[in-house]
Amino acid sequence: MFRYGRRLLHTSRSIQAQKSLTPLTSEKITNIKRSDKFKQLEQSDIDYFRTVLTSNNVVHDEELNPEQSTMTPYNTDFFNLHRGASKLCLFPTETSQVSKILKYCNEQKLAVVPQGGNTGVSGGQNPVFDEIIVNTSKMNKIRSFNDISGIAVVDAGVVLESLDNYLAPLGYTVPLDLGAKGSCQLGGNVSTNAGGLRLMKFGSLHGSVLGLEVVLPDGTIMDNLSTLRKDNTGYDLKQLFIGAEGTLGLVTGISIMTPRKPKSVNIAMLALDSFEKVQEAFVMAKEDLSEILSGFEFWDRESMELVKRVMLQDKEYPIEAKSKFYALLETQGSRQEHDQEKIDAYLTRLMETEVAHDGVMAQDEKQTTALWQWRERIPEAIVKSGTAMTYDVAMDVQLLYKMVGDVKDHYRERGLLGDDNVYKNVIGFGHIGDGNLHIMANIPDHDYKVQKDMDGFVYDWAIKHNGSITAEHGIGVAKVNYMTRCKTDVQIRLMQSIKNSIDPNGIMNPYKVVPGVL
Amino acid sequence: MFRYGRRLLHTSRSIQAQKSLTPLTSEKITNIKRSDKFKQLEQSDIDYFRTVLTSNNVVHDEELNPEQSTMTPYNTDFFNLHRGASKLCLFPTETSQVSKILKYCNEQKLAVVPQGGNTGVSGGQNPVFDEIIVNTSKMNKIRSFNDISGIAVVDAGVVLESLDNYLAPLGYTVPLDLGAKGSCQLGGNVSTNAGGLRLMKFGSLHGSVLGLEVVLPDGTIMDNLSTLRKDNTGYDLKQLFIGAEGTLGLVTGISIMTPRKPKSVNIAMLALDSFEKVQEAFVMAKEDLSEILSGFEFWDRESMELVKRVMLQDKEYPIEAKSKFYALLETQGSRQEHDQEKIDAYLTRLMETEVAHDGVMAQDEKQTTALWQWRERIPEAIVKSGTAMTYDVAMDVQLLYKMVGDVKDHYRERGLLGDDNVYKNVIGFGHIGDGNLHIMANIPDHDYKVQKDMDGFVYDWAIKHNGSITAEHGIGVAKVNYMTRCKTDVQIRLMQSIKNSIDPNGIMNPYKVVPGVL
Repeated sequence: MFRYGRRLLHTSRSIQAQKSLTPLTSEKITNIKRSDKFKQLEQSDIDYFRTVLTSNNVVHDEELNPEQSTMTPYNTDFFNLHRGASKLCLFPTETSQVSKILKYCNEQKLAVVPQGGNTGVSGGQNPVFDEIIVNTSKMNKIRSFNDISGIAVVDAGVVLESLDNYLAPLGYTVPLDLGAKGSCQLGGNVSTNAGGLRLMKFGSLHGSVLGLEVVLPDGTIMDNLSTLRKDNTGYDLKQLFIGAEGTLGLVTGISIMTPRKPKSVNIAMLALDSFEKVQEAFVMAKEDLSEILSGFEFWDRESMELVKRVMLQDKEYPIEAKSKFYALLETQGSRQEHDQEKIDAYLTRLMETEVAHDGVMAQDEKQTTALWQWRERIPEAIVKSGTAMTYDVAMDVQLLYKMVGDVKDHYRERGLLGDDNVYKNVIGFGHIGDGNLHIMANIPDHDYKVQKDMDGFVYDWAIKHNGSITAEHGIGVAKVNYMTRCKTDVQIRLMQSIKNSIDPNGIMNPYKVVPGVL
Repeated sequence: MFRYGRRLLHTSRSIQAQKSLTPLTSEKITNIKRSDKFKQLEQSDIDYFRTVLTSNNVVHDEELNPEQSTMTPYNTDFFNLHRGASKLCLFPTETSQVSKILKYCNEQKLAVVPQGGNTGVSGGQNPVFDEIIVNTSKMNKIRSFNDISGIAVVDAGVVLESLDNYLAPLGYTVPLDLGAKGSCQLGGNVSTNAGGLRLMKFGSLHGSVLGLEVVLPDGTIMDNLSTLRKDNTGYDLKQLFIGAEGTLGLVTGISIMTPRKPKSVNIAMLALDSFEKVQEAFVMAKEDLSEILSGFEFWDRESMELVKRVMLQDKEYPIEAKSKFYALLETQGSRQEHDQEKIDAYLTRLMETEVAHDGVMAQDEKQTTALWQWRERIPEAIVKSGTAMTYDVAMDVQLLYKMVGDVKDHYRERGLLGDDNVYKNVIGFGHIGDGNLHIMANIPDHDYKVQKDMDGFVYDWAIKHNGSITAEHGIGVAKVNYMTRCKTDVQIRLMQSIKNSIDPNGIMNPYKVVPGVL
C-alpha cells in the first residue's frame, strides 16, 4: 500500500537517463562557497581508504564529464534537482570502518557527506562540492529482533521495506511507511526524521526510535542502542541525531519499536465539494473511527485528473468525477466486524449530513490496490509530465489548502500559469491528519530562476502563516538559505553551538542545515 | 483514576510534619562539594530580585533551623529524602522575569535550581547547597487551546490536573497521567520526561510535546513554541530540554498535543499464579484488545496484603485473595458494545487457557473506583508504614520481577529482611506495558547507610541486566554518582559537551544529572 515511491524511483531513474543532468548545485546556489579549510582529496587519502575497505567498496573516479563518471549516481538525486562533484564514494560494511574513515577525515580536514538510499529530496545526501560520500548501503544486517517486545536492532543501511518483509511473518510491521520504502534506508529515515503515512497512528521517530549507534565526527563510536521503552538516565542523546541530516555524526545502528501487524485493514474513498468539507470529514473520522483511524489523505481535482490523463487513461474513475476534492481514509483494527460497523456508521453520517457526496469502500485486496492508485500515482504522474518541483509544508489545518490557490493566483496574475506556460500542473495533496501539504508543479527543465521564484513564494507564504517550510523532507542544501528566516537568532545560535561542540572541524555534511558554521 | 498521588502527597505532608526532617543532602552524599565558583547570596542580590518581582514573590529566610525556616517546604521533597539549604525562593509570574533572573544569576555566578510542583523523587528540584530556587507555581496560565487540532499552549506552572479539568468539557484529555497529577506541573513533567500510566497508549513527551519556550542560562528566551505536528527545520532543539531536569535552561512554556477523551473506558482485574502468567496475560491482551488497550499494571501479593492491612482493613478483597500476582487492565475506545465484546472474549480466553484463575470487570464508576484502590493505594500504604524507598527501574519484561526476588534473597541471606528488621515490606509493582518496575521497601528513619546499600544493590542489578536505573524518575542528585556506571565515557563526554556549550558557567541546577562539569 502507498507504494508509489518505488515506482516513482524507477520512473525518475529512466527520466534521468533521457534528460540532461541538472547543473551543479554550486552553480545554482551561488552564495555557498567551498570552504578553504577543507583539504582537496589526494592520492594518499585514497590509499588510506583502501587499507580500511576492500577495493570493491571504494568507488573513485576523476572523470569530469558527469555523463561518463561512475560517481554520477551518488552525486545526483532522484528528482535531478541537486548535483555535487565528489570523486570518491566509500561503502563501509561495518561500524568500525565508519569510525576509521571519520577519524581520518577529521584529522585530515576532509569533508564528508553521509548517504543512504539517496531518496532525499532536499539534497542533504548529495555533496555540494567535492565532499567524500560515505554510503551505508552495504551495512544492511538486521542485528536482532525480540518477538515479545517487538524491538528490532538494525544496521543503518537496512532498507525500510526489507525490514517490513522480515517482520511480516512474525506478526509485526514497521511504524513508518513512505513512498521511497523500497529504496530508503533506516539510517536515512532517522537522519531526516522521516514522517510518512503512518505518523498519525504511530507518531514520529522521536518516539519509536529507542536507541542509536552513531559514529561521531572524530570517529568515536557512541553506542546508545538501548532496547528499553523508558530510560531517563541523563540527556536523551539519540534525539539530537534524529533529524540532524548527518551534520552531527553518522548513524550506523538503530533500535526501533515495531507495532503488531493489524488483523483488519479497511480503506474508503470520498468525494467532497470543498476543503472545508475535507476538514469536516476528518473531524468526524476522528470522532467515529477514533482508535482505528490510521490515515487520512486528501488531494484535489487537478491531481485526480492528472493521474487519469497521464497514468490511468484506460481506468474508470472509481468515484464521482469532477469533484473538487478527494479523500482516502484507512483504518487498522483487530476485528473486521467491529471496524466495518464503525466505518458503515461513519460513511452513512457523512452522506446524511452531506459532508461527502460520494463514497466507496474497498471490498477486497484488488479493490484496495485499485483505489490507492489514484492517490499513490500522483507524484509519478507529475514527474512523468516534466521537471517537477515538490514541497512539503506544514501549517494549521484550516490554512492548508489556501496556499495552493494563492500560488495559482500569484502566477496567473503574472501571466505565468497554464498548460503551455512556465508553471503548470500546480497540484496539492497531503496528510491532513498531520497538517502536512505537498504542493507540486511542473516547470521548464533546469530553469533555476523559475525554481527559485516558486521556492521563495512557497517558503515566504509558509513562514508568514506560522507554518513550517518542511514538514518532513528536511533542510538539506535546498532550504539552508531560508533557515535564518524561519528560525529565531537564538535557535540558530543554539544549533550552531551544538554543531560546533560536536563537530568542531565542521567536516560532517557541510553547507547544510545550520547556516553560519563554516 | 490512578489518583494515588494526591492522597500520597497529603499523607506525606502530614508524615513530614510528624517525623523529623531528613539530614541535609550534602551531609549524605559526601563526595559532592559546593563549587567555589558560585557566589554566596548577598543583600545586593536580594535587592536586585526585589526590583524584578513584587515582594510577595520573593521568599527570603536566613533562619538556620529548618523546623522554623519558611524555606523548608522548597528545600525538601515529599518523600523526605532530600534536603538543601537555600535561603531564597523566587516566584516569577512571567517569562520576562525568569529571563531577568537568569541573566543576573549568570552574570553574578549564582547557582539556580528550577522547581515546579516539587513532586520529583530524585531530588532534582531541591537545592543541594544554597542554590536559589526559581519556582514556576505562579506561572499558571493556559495560553491557548485549538479545539480542532487539540493542541494546547500552557505556562510551565500549569498543574497537570488543572489542564485535564480545563480540557474535559472540550472533549480532550492530557496525554500523560501520573500519581502526582494534582500537584505536578507541566514544566516539571517536561523537564523530567515524566512517563506515567498512559505512556503505553500515547507515547512519551518526546512525541506529544510540539514546542517549548525555554529561558537559557544567560537569560535569552528561546521561543520554540511550535504548534505544528511536523516540523523538520533543523535540529529538534526542544528534545534536548525534555528530560534535562533543568540543567540546560528553565522551561517556561509548553505546546502539547492532547488526545480526544475516550467515549468508553473499561477496567478489569485479574488474579494470576506467576509472573510468567502475568506476561502471558499481557501478550494476549495485546492480541485481543490491541487498539483499545490503554494500560496494563501488575502488583504482587505483598503489595495487595499491605494495602488491605494498612489502607482498606474494612474492605473485602475484590478477587481471590492469596494469589501470587494481580493485574489491572484498562481499555479506551469509542464504542462500549465493541469494547465489551473484545474484553469478554479476552477474559474467557484467559480463564479457558488457565492463564488467570480469577477475573472481575467493573460494571460502573463506583466499581471502577473500588478496583483501582487496590493498585493506587500501594505507595500510600508503604509511606504510611514508615520511611519508604522508591525505585523505578526498566528492563526486559521477562526479567522485570526477578529483581524483587533477588533483593529479598540478598537481605534474607544477611539476616536483614523481615517485619521487625531493617528491610521490610519489600514489594514490586509497575507498568508491564513499558517494562517498568517500581520496587519499594520500608527502612529505618534517616539511616542513609541502609538506603545507600539498597540503592547500590538495585542499581547494580539493573545495570548488570542491561536495564535502566531510572525509567521515569530521573537522575537528579540521588543517582548522579551512578551515571558513570550506566553510561559510556562517550555518552558522558557528549552530555558534558552539551552542558558546557549551553551553560558555560554551570549555574543551572548544578551537581545533578551530568557528572564532572563543575
